[in-house]
Amino acid sequence: MLNFDFYNPTHIIFGKDRLDEVGKNTPAGARVLVTYGRGSAKKSGLIDKVKTSLGNRQVFEFGGIEPNPRYETLMKAVEIVRAEKIDFLLAVGGGSVIDGTKFIALAALYEKDPRDLLKFGLATVPLDVAGKALPIGTVLTLPATGSEMNCGAVISHEHGKYPVLNVMTYPKFSILDPALTFTLPRIQVANGVVDAFVHTTEQYITYPADGRVQDRFAEGILRTLIEIGKTTVEEAENYDARANHEWAATLALNGLIGAGVPQDWATHMIGHELTAMFGIDHGQTLAAVLPAMLDIRRDKKRAKLLQYAERVWDIKSGSEDEKIDQAIAKTREFFESLGIKTRLSEYGVKADKIPAVIEQLKAHGMTKLSETGDLTPDISKKILEKAM
Amino acid sequence: MLNFDFYNPTHIIFGKDRLDEVGKNTPAGARVLVTYGRGSAKKSGLIDKVKTSLGNRQVFEFGGIEPNPRYETLMKAVEIVRAEKIDFLLAVGGGSVIDGTKFIALAALYEKDPRDLLKFGLATVPLDVAGKALPIGTVLTLPATGSEMNCGAVISHEHGKYPVLNVMTYPKFSILDPALTFTLPRIQVANGVVDAFVHTTEQYITYPADGRVQDRFAEGILRTLIEIGKTTVEEAENYDARANHEWAATLALNGLIGAGVPQDWATHMIGHELTAMFGIDHGQTLAAVLPAMLDIRRDKKRAKLLQYAERVWDIKSGSEDEKIDQAIAKTREFFESLGIKTRLSEYGVKADKIPAVIEQLKAHGMTKLSETGDLTPDISKKILEKAM
Repeated sequence: MLNFDFYNPTHIIFGKDRLDEVGKNTPAGARVLVTYGRGSAKKSGLIDKVKTSLGNRQVFEFGGIEPNPRYETLMKAVEIVRAEKIDFLLAVGGGSVIDGTKFIALAALYEKDPRDLLKFGLATVPLDVAGKALPIGTVLTLPATGSEMNCGAVISHEHGKYPVLNVMTYPKFSILDPALTFTLPRIQVANGVVDAFVHTTEQYITYPADGRVQDRFAEGILRTLIEIGKTTVEEAENYDARANHEWAATLALNGLIGAGVPQDWATHMIGHELTAMFGIDHGQTLAAVLPAMLDIRRDKKRAKLLQYAERVWDIKSGSEDEKIDQAIAKTREFFESLGIKTRLSEYGVKADKIPAVIEQLKAHGMTKLSETGDLTPDISKKILEKAM
Repeated sequence: MLNFDFYNPTHIIFGKDRLDEVGKNTPAGARVLVTYGRGSAKKSGLIDKVKTSLGNRQVFEFGGIEPNPRYETLMKAVEIVRAEKIDFLLAVGGGSVIDGTKFIALAALYEKDPRDLLKFGLATVPLDVAGKALPIGTVLTLPATGSEMNCGAVISHEHGKYPVLNVMTYPKFSILDPALTFTLPRIQVANGVVDAFVHTTEQYITYPADGRVQDRFAEGILRTLIEIGKTTVEEAENYDARANHEWAATLALNGLIGAGVPQDWATHMIGHELTAMFGIDHGQTLAAVLPAMLDIRRDKKRAKLLQYAERVWDIKSGSEDEKIDQAIAKTREFFESLGIKTRLSEYGVKADKIPAVIEQLKAHGMTKLSETGDLTPDISKKILEKAM
């Protein structure tokens, strides 16, 4: 097992009818900015319910945080925070709203150019660069990214997507009521299953490090997502399926399953470029890149791919490569069973665009990806070709 | 899935050569009381190393915290804390030292009779009773109880063992270096495996609640303990086995696997009386009570027992009762493979003492045990008879 630190102070408030606990978990007398997306939380009445729970606190609103939240949008919220002396942020939405709110929390207290915060990649923004952030609470409406229980965000700026990690941005609390997801569009639910699935494989299908509990936990999340995936997509008001989807998605990226084991994240980094260039949903990019990644990297990831085949998909017969082929095929079938296509060509991406994607990867410094840093642009190119 | 809250702010510092991080994680200028057990941490030089890491802080020592830490012992430390204006406690040891230190942390700031804190059983001591505690750090030397990453303690007083839970007593940090366990007596390592195993079964072998990830995680901890149990006992310096043992034991009782599912704890409550009356090690009492508990409660726990048989022990054939019999037999064999006896008679307990144990359970209010509160003293009696 590798050495690790694990720290996660977010208070999770999970279950039916928990929304009215927003009030008692928000500091008395706080000046609160409620942040949300492009309207569904507002239209459904959820924002009003949250404001009711906040009682007589001074509450401001900032709506319009888009999927893949943009720097320019978030800086408008920063202006409100500064003008209105906001001291608590309450994000109501999915991963994009929560990610965006984390950036607002950091940028509002950052005295230099907040674009500085985009420069640290998957490394934590050092505390001597940004050592304070406004406190955040969240009300989750979309199980997918895990942002409700981690200190990471992904921010879009110009033609790039930039990870921003900082320990000050763990939410103080997150309300996870699976019933709040009942009105989601089907595609978002399906994307959420894929996102949680690939968060898990990024921390699991690497090389063996004798992290036995970590491996079992990762396999448990994957098996759960496989068990409930189709149901949670097709039965919008199936509470049990949504509850298992939501808790699995949170645990897939709260630091736990990656503690003490290698982590890859190349599928995400390549996927980010595809979203930035072609506007393909994040989950869809992952569904297209992962099967290709596993295929091209089968020798490097062989031991864990065989473990994945056996323990997650119950594949017990065949040669090693046959088992790996079957596991990749099962993965692809699973994504497709949710209604998520797994070929870039099906999203309208033409093969002649691949060199431009590679140039963007290089421009963003993504030239040494993977759990060992050996995934060069040449290999990324092969993966993209395989993903067509 | 049941509604739940999950909150655990302990910073885990896990791995090789992490001991010198005690200093940087302890507040500068703190007046520190280092607490430890009956001598091995002192003799081995570990206490001196910890003091070196603490640098020029004012450091005091309190040794002699016994297994099943006693109220009277801990109150001596409380006197030192008050006299020397201690503001940080550093526990160096196993679960008993850490549990005892949590009690010191609460009692030192409690203005009435600290025996009040023993009266809340498995419910949390309310914050309006005890809302503050001294901050604690820990250096773990024995993987077993999970105390390094939870807010619970078990304190012995007169003829009883009393759980004390309070959210203020989560350690601020815990150093988990598996190499610090290399000098442990074999019996303590074996007890530690059993303890972690039964912590897990208390939160898993109950009734189905569709907590799919929780079940998978519990099964992952159990399978890991089964895989590494014999090795971690027999190969004192096998780092990988000890690392997996240690992290599994921490995760077995940090609130995670029990969040959103029913919990039993009857095996522990009965075991506590056996330790208090006969001085049998905690792990040994669990090894004797659990197989009997599962046998007597097989109808109530049937669905989860069958899941346990299939997913943890790979038992796939036979009638339901045959599968359950096999699973119980495998559990017993596993404990015995570690050198832990599983019959009370082997610990010198005679059957004619059972009525006295039942009287103690009654005296401590343990008359409605289990995940549904239906485990009466009459059933406890049958379990103890079966455990002979």
